[in-house]
Amino acid sequence: MEYTSSVLENAVNEMAKLPGVGRRTALRFALHILKQDELYATCLAQSILKLRTEIRYCRECNNLSDTDYCTICSDSMRNHSVICVVENIRDVMAIEATGQYKGVYHVLGGVISPINGVGVNDIKISDLVKRVKENNVDEIILALPTTMEGDTTSFYINRLLEDTHVKVSAIARGVAIGDNIEYADEQTLGRSIVNRQPFQDIYKR
Amino acid sequence: MEYTSSVLENAVNEMAKLPGVGRRTALRFALHILKQDELYATCLAQSILKLRTEIRYCRECNNLSDTDYCTICSDSMRNHSVICVVENIRDVMAIEATGQYKGVYHVLGGVISPINGVGVNDIKISDLVKRVKENNVDEIILALPTTMEGDTTSFYINRLLEDTHVKVSAIARGVAIGDNIEYADEQTLGRSIVNRQPFQDIYKR
Repeated sequence: MEYTSSVLENAVNEMAKLPGVGRRTALRFALHILKQDELYATCLAQSILKLRTEIRYCRECNNLSDTDYCTICSDSMRNHSVICVVENIRDVMAIEATGQYKGVYHVLGGVISPINGVGVNDIKISDLVKRVKENNVDEIILALPTTMEGDTTSFYINRLLEDTHVKVSAIARGVAIGDNIEYADEQTLGRSIVNRQPFQDIYKR
Repeated sequence: MEYTSSVLENAVNEMAKLPGVGRRTALRFALHILKQDELYATCLAQSILKLRTEIRYCRECNNLSDTDYCTICSDSMRNHSVICVVENIRDVMAIEATGQYKGVYHVLGGVISPINGVGVNDIKISDLVKRVKENNVDEIILALPTTMEGDTTSFYINRLLEDTHVKVSAIARGVAIGDNIEYADEQTLGRSIVNRQPFQDIYKR
């Protein structure tokens, strides 16, 4: 496509770098911004700048935060002896949205993936081990993806913590609530049969 | 969803105002920006700001431009006596991409739509009439959408130009090249039969 304005072309090029955004969508964004009043463009641009300059990572759990310690880590009502290990902050948000978890988190910022050049030292594993050893932690809940990379990371963390007293668990996998059993994939269905639970246990809480 | 950072939340709120972007996609954008180096956020933010502050509208055709007159209007090789009337600059880009049109454009910036509060004076119709009357224009090609609003606008422009010498035409509508005739909608197929052309004319160019 040919643009009659280099300013427009530049904006389209930059916005087309966002994930899942092609040049056509980027053009749609640009024309939308042009139609709004100038305040919107200013607010949008400033919020993006601030995102990069003002945001901090929680010193305790590596979650995104406005302050040195995130709202979850600085909440004394939460159980600091249980740490849920997740890949990224979207996982934190998803678990928080359930309202079922009262412990704290540890955001790795990725999973071990040699093919993508992500090694053991590129994610926050040593921080996790240090945190476990220096604090009074009872349990680590691994909530990493069930991909080869996620499983590798889970196994690695489990091995590092073998010589500590900490209990290492992983979130339950099984057929999702509301899903038809006939459509569940074999691996999931297989695992949910092997890991079956006493019926009364499910409703005890 | 609950955010542990107000800076993040603010960025997500602003980006979720873009067309077709929900809060989940906006969050994906924000986390992507955080993963890139700081230069990207700066470039993106500046390109958005510049979009609103530096862009101009061509004084002749209302197309987006970096200067007072757009590259098409200031091109002396183009035929300035033929004006193609379009709704927005995306239409200009689409027609330019065909490489088949050597005239100039007039961007209305919308179509008459009382239901959306767009009246005759909200789009650049009077500028078009003035342009036609003050310049040596032979033909106006209407390339507006075939919606009720687009047709209304086309009829209105045609009526305003009835007392001038200018020839008013509209782009051909018909079954798209490559499309199966059996799947074409009735209106399109009907129109393409009524507006059939001598076979030799189609390949004469």
